[in-house]
Amino acid sequence: MTGTAPVPFTADDYAARMERAARQAADAGLAGLLVAPGPDMVWLTGYTPPADTERLTLLVLAPGRPPELVVPALEAPDAGRATGAPALTLRDWTDGKDPYALTAALLDARGRFGVSDNAWALHLLALQRTLPDTSYVALTEALPMLRAVKDAAELERLAAAGAAADAAFEEIRQVRFSGRPESEVAADLAGLLRRFGHSQVDFTIVASGPNGANPHHEAGDRRIERGDMVVLDFGGLKDGYGSDTSRTVHVGEPTDEERRVHDLVREAQEAGFRAVRPGAACQDVDRAARAVIADAGYGEYFIHRTGHGIGVTTHEPPYMIEGEEQPLVPGMCFSVEPGVYLPGRFGVRIEDIVTVTEDGGRRLNDTERELVTVA
Amino acid sequence: MTGTAPVPFTADDYAARMERAARQAADAGLAGLLVAPGPDMVWLTGYTPPADTERLTLLVLAPGRPPELVVPALEAPDAGRATGAPALTLRDWTDGKDPYALTAALLDARGRFGVSDNAWALHLLALQRTLPDTSYVALTEALPMLRAVKDAAELERLAAAGAAADAAFEEIRQVRFSGRPESEVAADLAGLLRRFGHSQVDFTIVASGPNGANPHHEAGDRRIERGDMVVLDFGGLKDGYGSDTSRTVHVGEPTDEERRVHDLVREAQEAGFRAVRPGAACQDVDRAARAVIADAGYGEYFIHRTGHGIGVTTHEPPYMIEGEEQPLVPGMCFSVEPGVYLPGRFGVRIEDIVTVTEDGGRRLNDTERELVTVA
Repeated sequence: MTGTAPVPFTADDYAARMERAARQAADAGLAGLLVAPGPDMVWLTGYTPPADTERLTLLVLAPGRPPELVVPALEAPDAGRATGAPALTLRDWTDGKDPYALTAALLDARGRFGVSDNAWALHLLALQRTLPDTSYVALTEALPMLRAVKDAAELERLAAAGAAADAAFEEIRQVRFSGRPESEVAADLAGLLRRFGHSQVDFTIVASGPNGANPHHEAGDRRIERGDMVVLDFGGLKDGYGSDTSRTVHVGEPTDEERRVHDLVREAQEAGFRAVRPGAACQDVDRAARAVIADAGYGEYFIHRTGHGIGVTTHEPPYMIEGEEQPLVPGMCFSVEPGVYLPGRFGVRIEDIVTVTEDGGRRLNDTERELVTVA
Repeated sequence: MTGTAPVPFTADDYAARMERAARQAADAGLAGLLVAPGPDMVWLTGYTPPADTERLTLLVLAPGRPPELVVPALEAPDAGRATGAPALTLRDWTDGKDPYALTAALLDARGRFGVSDNAWALHLLALQRTLPDTSYVALTEALPMLRAVKDAAELERLAAAGAAADAAFEEIRQVRFSGRPESEVAADLAGLLRRFGHSQVDFTIVASGPNGANPHHEAGDRRIERGDMVVLDFGGLKDGYGSDTSRTVHVGEPTDEERRVHDLVREAQEAGFRAVRPGAACQDVDRAARAVIADAGYGEYFIHRTGHGIGVTTHEPPYMIEGEEQPLVPGMCFSVEPGVYLPGRFGVRIEDIVTVTEDGGRRLNDTERELVTVA
């Protein structure tokens, strides 16, 4: 049950993205963008190399030039089959040749370039040495919003990924938790994500009882017991776009305190959601959620930022964090996920993906946010 | 059927590796090593972060200082559980703080540092900006042989991974090839690697007929036919160490030419293997294999280097390539994998992992190297 296939991106879509990126680079005073394999490259070209290795693959986007892809000769046939390939000029190089000299010939020798965050240091250092008068800035710093504003086709995929994650939650709340190790429930969740169309599962956090107080606990051997709070936080990629949602469930009846903390986080999540509107700053979303928790005296137990963007990855700009003044723009998509973590006891986190519309936020997750009890 | 568990690496093993790495850095005139998540970090500490993200995790090895791990506070509990953690001082940082300032305080502000090849450009650029008088060199350039010489416990794991890959070949040669798409045979191979104890499958190339002429073809929809040559090249990680082997099989009886080309590649592989001995240069292995193919008039159809190292990854230094003068040292492990690729027709590749001993090479793969026919 994977639903219908999404409308495919076309060669023209990729050509338009590359053109827009080159224009934004020029507007930012850059001589070009150097795009490494990974999310930037797949978003701009549809191409993912067979492996990300020490062999240089690099997309060069320079204003006034056609997009050029430096690629190992062995992989040129793969690159040529990418959806975005019609707009690309392939510059292939064979083992033993210097791919940096080849790349340097495509670049302004005194230019400043944006480079993918995840480009290998190996490649950056070689370019810095080959062209000592060039300078570089990380792409998310130069153009933090390059991939942040989603078009209609992307929003459709993100909504479908969110719906699939929600369908997984509706199933997992029916299974038995008590007496099973966290890792088993995590495996169930991974299976459900795949069943509902995910091609890649990035994380299936099942953090029970005191493990819930570590926001990055994944899933371990601990056997879930009656009386446990259990943080579930799961997501991955469906048709190339991400899902990421959290719900905290309780095995059997919660105590008054557990219910109170859960209500608090729910109110904080609602406040963060309500702060989403065009023109608000990212940090306003963080502040709105954090204020609710701080006002209730739990501020010191909310130990992470309120959210992160999502798109072709499950974790990208914009970040909902104090100090981030980036204004929200319709089409942006990100998580709103406040939490409270009581060391040695339990944790609560509630997370939806939210997209910015002209009128405010729209949630891409919509399962029960009241405390759900499980068996 | 996963065999017996290997002897685990201990905290002392990791401490010794870190100490040796710091000493090698000092000998190379470096102020230290900056080690990113990935193979370098797992080899030095046993630690793999939950995800490799924009949040800085960095191991700092500086001569005369204890090893320090800069780590996001959320992930500090995970890092603290790594086998190598007893030798590490954790330097954790919370969201909103500047991890580069924290790192800079650990570094010689005028030093030259080796940095993991796969460290993110984002992090390198931030360090270059924070400490403008520092300089950097890629780790495989500064200390190319850091992970290249394997100790006895590592060799045992590499041998076990090779034996598991060989077991997979013994099974796959029994299955039917003709009439099935390449992707199905590739899925069989992946399943076999897992059945024989691999936790990770990195590649399962099944390149039939003309697809075999592209050395990086993976596996596609093409239906394998009677009369096809089929290149099989597969590997992954078992107990943290890599396998990688290739055999070329024929569906039904080969033609004289197919047999001749296969014999030629087999002789080239044997010549490369025989060139392995302490003190020989990496390029000697390449030259020995290449000479056999060139002498037979097929030189232009051998379009890649002869081999690459293997360890905690399936692809690392040393490289068996013209121009690589690094002498071979007992304990090094690498592939010897010449091939001939006839465009539009077929390809042949034969690959074993070979380790250097005092007396010459020892193969870690040992399945049939004569042309095997399959059904």
